[in-house]
Amino acid sequence: MSIPFPARSRFLDPQIEMAHGAGGKASRRLVEDLIAPLLLGDSSGPLADAAQVQIGPASVAFTADSFVVHPLRFPGGSIGDLAVNGTANDLAVSGARPHALVVTLIVEAGLPSRELEAEIRAIAQAAARAGVIIAGGDTKVVEHGKADRLYITTAGIGRPLPGAHLSPSRVQPGDKILLSGPIGDHGTTILLARGELDLEADLSSDTRCVFPMVEALLNAAGPCVRWMRDPTRGGVATSLNELARDAHVGILIEEDAVPIRDTVRGACELLGLDPLHIANEGQFLAVVAPDRAQAALEALHQTQGGELAAIIGEVSQQPRATVLSKAAFGGTRVLDMLVGDPLPRIC
Amino acid sequence: MSIPFPARSRFLDPQIEMAHGAGGKASRRLVEDLIAPLLLGDSSGPLADAAQVQIGPASVAFTADSFVVHPLRFPGGSIGDLAVNGTANDLAVSGARPHALVVTLIVEAGLPSRELEAEIRAIAQAAARAGVIIAGGDTKVVEHGKADRLYITTAGIGRPLPGAHLSPSRVQPGDKILLSGPIGDHGTTILLARGELDLEADLSSDTRCVFPMVEALLNAAGPCVRWMRDPTRGGVATSLNELARDAHVGILIEEDAVPIRDTVRGACELLGLDPLHIANEGQFLAVVAPDRAQAALEALHQTQGGELAAIIGEVSQQPRATVLSKAAFGGTRVLDMLVGDPLPRIC
Repeated sequence: MSIPFPARSRFLDPQIEMAHGAGGKASRRLVEDLIAPLLLGDSSGPLADAAQVQIGPASVAFTADSFVVHPLRFPGGSIGDLAVNGTANDLAVSGARPHALVVTLIVEAGLPSRELEAEIRAIAQAAARAGVIIAGGDTKVVEHGKADRLYITTAGIGRPLPGAHLSPSRVQPGDKILLSGPIGDHGTTILLARGELDLEADLSSDTRCVFPMVEALLNAAGPCVRWMRDPTRGGVATSLNELARDAHVGILIEEDAVPIRDTVRGACELLGLDPLHIANEGQFLAVVAPDRAQAALEALHQTQGGELAAIIGEVSQQPRATVLSKAAFGGTRVLDMLVGDPLPRIC
Repeated sequence: MSIPFPARSRFLDPQIEMAHGAGGKASRRLVEDLIAPLLLGDSSGPLADAAQVQIGPASVAFTADSFVVHPLRFPGGSIGDLAVNGTANDLAVSGARPHALVVTLIVEAGLPSRELEAEIRAIAQAAARAGVIIAGGDTKVVEHGKADRLYITTAGIGRPLPGAHLSPSRVQPGDKILLSGPIGDHGTTILLARGELDLEADLSSDTRCVFPMVEALLNAAGPCVRWMRDPTRGGVATSLNELARDAHVGILIEEDAVPIRDTVRGACELLGLDPLHIANEGQFLAVVAPDRAQAALEALHQTQGGELAAIIGEVSQQPRATVLSKAAFGGTRVLDMLVGDPLPRIC
């Protein structure tokens, strides 16, 4: 059988490194140069958080993510919470109501059963909170030393909301950029939980299902919501760079408008990291047409967890495919995608 | 929030061992005593290969599997083939036409890119052969020593065929048991590929999508097809034991009627294994009402790969929850589920 896939891949990195899984530039290269051309064909457009698939009379949103976070448990959650919320959030920001998940486990032989049970319970409880059912799953066990305790993969299906028409191609200069809440909590919590920083801080992961906030936003602004994404690996900066590239627009961020907790800012300063590159697991970005942006923001403020939502910038005509960040004292800098892998295995 | 899950699990094994992933008795205990009660609730019935989920106006079949086979490549296929065919087959034997898959990769840092590329190509080609689209995915990278080169998880959705009404509860004494072809090819191929047996043999994995065979069977016997399953981990013996338990029936197998290649029989004799416990990746079992069993068999014989299909036994009233195997020379033995893990990581 002849298969219509390219004979040679454009991907030239000789081997896979941690950075290819970090969600930044190397990840994008791996996906754009190797995986997408072979698996999705050359006609594939920008990669969305969830695909829309037609099954008979119904349109179904469909997505999957693997979770390899280390450590398994951390303040505010665990790998089980992430596995449910992460996939539910991919459905939510694609404009779909999360409905059902399937869960697969890769377990390292020797894992104490009570640790596995704790994660099964975390999955069950996170699913109940998110209003999704667990429809099935699979378990594999590998020898000791062939995994790191437990990896979880979840796939999810959901029903696209009738009012949601989301695409980078709908993003226009003048549109406002909304952020649901403070950034960097998850990634910073994981760093602290590893004990790599000699720092005590009252901080916990923001892992949660953002669907109630997404629904409130869509109810308030309907088709004026142009695009959404949950800024996980690579953070807000990476998600906005992907949008700028996919939508062929510029993006200008007001750095002062981005909500960041002092603890996160402090930890990032110690580490020389930009909070805009730190992963979030319970936030989302939305681009909203200017005349509905204020109403959308007020709707978010009324939701649980959306109290600190903010308009953090806007879309511009130029410079295309570029994100600029304006500091409080007036300077403007180019905000790049995440490069390298300063924060391995945060989800 | 109060969560309606049992406070204590019945699962008493102190830690997870390889046998919990082998598909036999320990796997069933893990699922029935720990995972299903917590994740699926006490109301869950027998565990099917794929769940049926209602999304708006459509019924959607939904399933997922992780793949950790070692080695990654073997005669007849590779982990990429298994990942596509395994999930497509779970949909097929649930009576659904496989439609779309999402694929997630967990890659060990240091994996040569050309090995990853080979598996991406295998996925693309297996999907093309199976007639399914790849709708999306995710890639995570873990440190060297935290995985074994590459693990793949696939989730699939499909459209239930209108004529398929499959459930253990529909299985009746007198029904015939059909098997699509020779057993044990996959598991034996993996064993040989590991070089653990000092044996040269012309054998390859049976990995393939069984949907065309399933469709032919359903076209020939319609609602007279009562139940189907693909006997992967744990083999035909384990699948039939699960059926006997779930349907509260007895099952009698004519051992002579089970198609087995000489190579497989020979390797199993050397290893002291029962071919009925060896994994298959391109076969399925079907229970068909007696008056349509012959027509169903003839339909299978007309399909590519179904030439050696056979009626291997029948359903009986007694002894309930038990599988008996009658040898050619007349003796009858109890055929149990797989116990332990003689064949780790064959899928």
